Amino acid sequence: MYDFRTDLADERRDLYKKMNQMQQEIPGITTEEEVIDEKIKITRVTIQNEQGEQAIGKPMGNYITIDIKKLNIITEEEIQKAAESTAKEIKARIDNLVNDQDDILVVGLGNADVTPDALGPKVVKHIEVTRHIIRYLPQYIDEKARPVSAVAPGVLGTTGIETLEIVQGIVENIKPKLLIVIDALASNSMERISSTIQIADTGIVPGAGVGNTRKEISQKTLGIPVIAIGIPTVVETAVVVNEALDLLIEKYQQEAKSNDTLNQIKEKDNYHEIKEALIPKDYNFIVTPKEIDQLIMNMSKIVAKAMNMAF
Amino acid sequence: MYDFRTDLADERRDLYKKMNQMQQEIPGITTEEEVIDEKIKITRVTIQNEQGEQAIGKPMGNYITIDIKKLNIITEEEIQKAAESTAKEIKARIDNLVNDQDDILVVGLGNADVTPDALGPKVVKHIEVTRHIIRYLPQYIDEKARPVSAVAPGVLGTTGIETLEIVQGIVENIKPKLLIVIDALASNSMERISSTIQIADTGIVPGAGVGNTRKEISQKTLGIPVIAIGIPTVVETAVVVNEALDLLIEKYQQEAKSNDTLNQIKEKDNYHEIKEALIPKDYNFIVTPKEIDQLIMNMSKIVAKAMNMAF
Amino acid sequence: MYDFRTDLADERRDLYKKMNQMQQEIPGITTEEEVIDEKIKITRVTIQNEQGEQAIGKPMGNYITIDIKKLNIITEEEIQKAAESTAKEIKARIDNLVNDQDDILVVGLGNADVTPDALGPKVVKHIEVTRHIIRYLPQYIDEKARPVSAVAPGVLGTTGIETLEIVQGIVENIKPKLLIVIDALASNSMERISSTIQIADTGIVPGAGVGNTRKEISQKTLGIPVIAIGIPTVVETAVVVNEALDLLIEKYQQEAKSNDTLNQIKEKDNYHEIKEALIPKDYNFIVTPKEIDQLIMNMSKIVAKAMNMAF
Amino acid sequence: MYDFRTDLADERRDLYKKMNQMQQEIPGITTEEEVIDEKIKITRVTIQNEQGEQAIGKPMGNYITIDIKKLNIITEEEIQKAAESTAKEIKARIDNLVNDQDDILVVGLGNADVTPDALGPKVVKHIEVTRHIIRYLPQYIDEKARPVSAVAPGVLGTTGIETLEIVQGIVENIKPKLLIVIDALASNSMERISSTIQIADTGIVPGAGVGNTRKEISQKTLGIPVIAIGIPTVVETAVVVNEALDLLIEKYQQEAKSNDTLNQIKEKDNYHEIKEALIPKDYNFIVTPKEIDQLIMNMSKIVAKAMNMAF
Repeated sequence: MYDFRTDLADERRDLYKKMNQMQQEIPGITTEEEVIDEKIKITRVTIQNEQGEQAIGKPMGNYITIDIKKLNIITEEEIQKAAESTAKEIKARIDNLVNDQDDILVVGLGNADVTPDALGPKVVKHIEVTRHIIRYLPQYIDEKARPVSAVAPGVLGTTGIETLEIVQGIVENIKPKLLIVIDALASNSMERISSTIQIADTGIVPGAGVGNTRKEISQKTLGIPVIAIGIPTVVETAVVVNEALDLLIEKYQQEAKSNDTLNQIKEKDNYHEIKEALIPKDYNFIVTPKEIDQLIMNMSKIVAKAMNMAF
Repeated sequence: MYDFRTDLADERRDLYKKMNQMQQEIPGITTEEEVIDEKIKITRVTIQNEQGEQAIGKPMGNYITIDIKKLNIITEEEIQKAAESTAKEIKARIDNLVNDQDDILVVGLGNADVTPDALGPKVVKHIEVTRHIIRYLPQYIDEKARPVSAVAPGVLGTTGIETLEIVQGIVENIKPKLLIVIDALASNSMERISSTIQIADTGIVPGAGVGNTRKEISQKTLGIPVIAIGIPTVVETAVVVNEALDLLIEKYQQEAKSNDTLNQIKEKDNYHEIKEALIPKDYNFIVTPKEIDQLIMNMSKIVAKAMNMAF
Repeated sequence: MYDFRTDLADERRDLYKKMNQMQQEIPGITTEEEVIDEKIKITRVTIQNEQGEQAIGKPMGNYITIDIKKLNIITEEEIQKAAESTAKEIKARIDNLVNDQDDILVVGLGNADVTPDALGPKVVKHIEVTRHIIRYLPQYIDEKARPVSAVAPGVLGTTGIETLEIVQGIVENIKPKLLIVIDALASNSMERISSTIQIADTGIVPGAGVGNTRKEISQKTLGIPVIAIGIPTVVETAVVVNEALDLLIEKYQQEAKSNDTLNQIKEKDNYHEIKEALIPKDYNFIVTPKEIDQLIMNMSKIVAKAMNMAF
Repeated sequence: MYDFRTDLADERRDLYKKMNQMQQEIPGITTEEEVIDEKIKITRVTIQNEQGEQAIGKPMGNYITIDIKKLNIITEEEIQKAAESTAKEIKARIDNLVNDQDDILVVGLGNADVTPDALGPKVVKHIEVTRHIIRYLPQYIDEKARPVSAVAPGVLGTTGIETLEIVQGIVENIKPKLLIVIDALASNSMERISSTIQIADTGIVPGAGVGNTRKEISQKTLGIPVIAIGIPTVVETAVVVNEALDLLIEKYQQEAKSNDTLNQIKEKDNYHEIKEALIPKDYNFIVTPKEIDQLIMNMSKIVAKAMNMAF
């Protein structure tokens, strides 16, 4: 498959169109955009059939992307607003798949001790779990409450166990009707780091974005629907360089200092060539912004608030 | 059953003997002591039959107690020595139950965000897991290495799921030959807080010591042998008061200020009466020493080192 | 001086009265109480002259105690309400000492790595500092804003430097008009752990409550007024036992099982005798409730919110 | 001054030579290299006079750079070895400036809550402070011990106070003979992130590498000698792109796909042009590798061990 270097369906669609110099939408894929306000934009990409699947290498289903601008300087009210928009989208996906009181299990993927990978475990900490109250202390909770449970199973490198194996075990024992997984993703754009949320009703392949693919967590492997909430927190150096090179040539063009060679480079997607140049020098680092602690903190607040509202 | 307020077999035996004013050993229970050096002492209590079981309310099996003095001011060398003594005892228990290359799953119970309850998750972080290397990268590891995996499943209050349900699920999926659980315990003595390690080959009932009993994790519920490594980190106020009252009356006696009333109080175990006096006033707090962070850090180093050596 | 084992003026007054079997108020001391609601109560103790000073061993000045019930199960609204009451009291003290735009330095005492001692550093993290914005980016802030700065200087054991020496150095260099110090205290009552706030306009002697006295931080040593905000987070075992012993004898009395010996013990304050019995056995531990992480988190939110409002 | 985007004297010298197409050493600057083993290399740059100062914009003095390869996969023995090499260099600088028992104050700059900026505070935590023991409990310490104290004063953004103001205050009060500051730096090379230590006997300008210059901490401002230990933990995107662009053109050249335009770009230093292209698009992020938590942990161990040995 084409190496898309991003887990966002939205970005893959753009890349596919650029590579194939398409103006119109890709057959088998539909897209709609909604601008909530100057800080929040929502894009809904639907992959309708196998043709769409093959084009961008993602399974059929709905992929909603919520972009929030300048998350590092966001106010508490803006966090609240972003959470509300996100809650609405999550709720729509949940209502589409299960009933109001169906049991939901939330799984926060990632390593709590690696800052850019800690989003999943951090969100899980703020989920209001109710399953045990409904079972053991039903008098303390609204009788219409939905049973919610939440775990952070750790990562293969520190547990020695595939995440899927742990999740499968829990699913078989507690039999939820829906799984929601939260994971850190890789993106094709530095700007999207911790400022974009993707909601997909198709499950997830943990680590896919960082070339460290693990077993798929999806309806196929677990037998229940899986909503995946992903937030880009890292990019490859080759991605950064690819974007920056375009900006540099654009500047040359504006200053009339460009030429055919450079113009042609700009027309193409140079990611793969850059990657091939960087890898032999051990230079294709995965990077994250200096402010990642703050970004992850704000983003985990938004996602946890949104999920608690949606439940 | 009698309310023993302690998870340590060693302490329960002492309490039973005191209550029943026995001089000799309890029928069905044997005990041996080994003094390693001035800081380390090992006590091995074996419950041999149902009579022993009923006396102290613990299942048949071996209970090894390792006491380490003044853990808060321990040196690196003393940590190393305590780890070696502990490793020897753990290894003896493991060798008794499984073969050299049999798969072991380590489970760190407790809530990582509650200092006196964080011992299990902290130990798990320092376990050298090998299962994934043996499966995916066998060329990087000694071919005789034992597959070890490790998880910290969280607690019912934050996951909404019984620990046993999570552990069962994982055990069914990865099929280890032996489970080792690490948990914080309650003790009958303030002095033992984070300075005693109990190794039992009988499994564990999480939260038992703090009156918050969860489902048993044992061969009976999981189908594989379970070694439980427990460290006391908290005591009830009633326990502290009971111990202190004896010391106070002892002082009165030495100063010839005691009398029959007080002497009789000292003869008895007053724990239950103290507890009954404290509970209506919401005063039977569970407490932990001010230095608990340091104690937990030192103890988790000792236990993790010991386990890595034993594997 | 009498060993009062508590840093709270309110508790010392009660102890002094009990010891001296006084019914009326101590000469030189006035007290008033205000009940805010069922969860919040405020007591204002004023030491008016040297007679009052000598009675309870605290310098002349105002000591406001805010008691908040069951802080471990407090809701967000109750936190907000407690913060508002506290803010009002802090603001009254500040307005009494300096003008609206006078520079304030906040100092969070204590060791960030020792849970029951981390309150000061945790509060400092949530103080909205403005001094640097007013100096370097005045266009981004209301021109009437008060310059606020905040430091957590660490403790003697980890810095090797007396806290007073660090604070003196900073005060001499940045010349604030008022210092506010936040510190963890010792209390005479288990119930008050992390549920009481004392605001005193007399400065503080760090570590005083735990028998580890450091140099005084006050107008006398620094030349500017010092407001001390203290929260009890620990108690001595002797204090716990002393309180519990009274409850135990009370129970005996109710059950008509008491006698003269016990009744006499209850009349007295037995703290010192208990302490003397415990110390030779290394048993006078300083303890804190198991839930201290949660209590400190809630309390630091209340204090930081209150201070930000008061500024 | 020329915008060198790096705090390392070693890198500035290379950049100056590249810009001026010099083959020989810069007048006023001497350099020597020492290869310790396959993982450790030491470079000693000395700026001897004003000519050298002006060339690379750093004050006269000694700059020792210790490069440690692949710090993310380092073993405990390699950490020990790197610490020993570093200790030797630090000790040589200390012995050059003060006597054996002269008082040293260690200052860890940076924000403990921002992963790539937390190196200073993390190192301070592991410094063995002795000043208070020598003053208050001399019987517990070797009489030849050197008084060492250590503080982490926080950053302007969270304290509201210039670091220099805090440090000045402490220096005036405790009067050390030597100051050692530890800070995170910016580098001109992604490879050097958390794998290089610079030791300079010339003091430091905090935040200089990230375009956020604070007041100088040096003999000039404090009146005592200042050794600065700096570790690069971040780079600008423009730096990454500049390095990567060279690697990309090199690849084109090897494949005979380059041309004059590209060859000329490679000859030059394109950092400033790239930066100018990125800034208008808000794209010149400061980045850090995904593994920064692990890198900072290993590096802080090395530096703290080295300092404790050197004292």
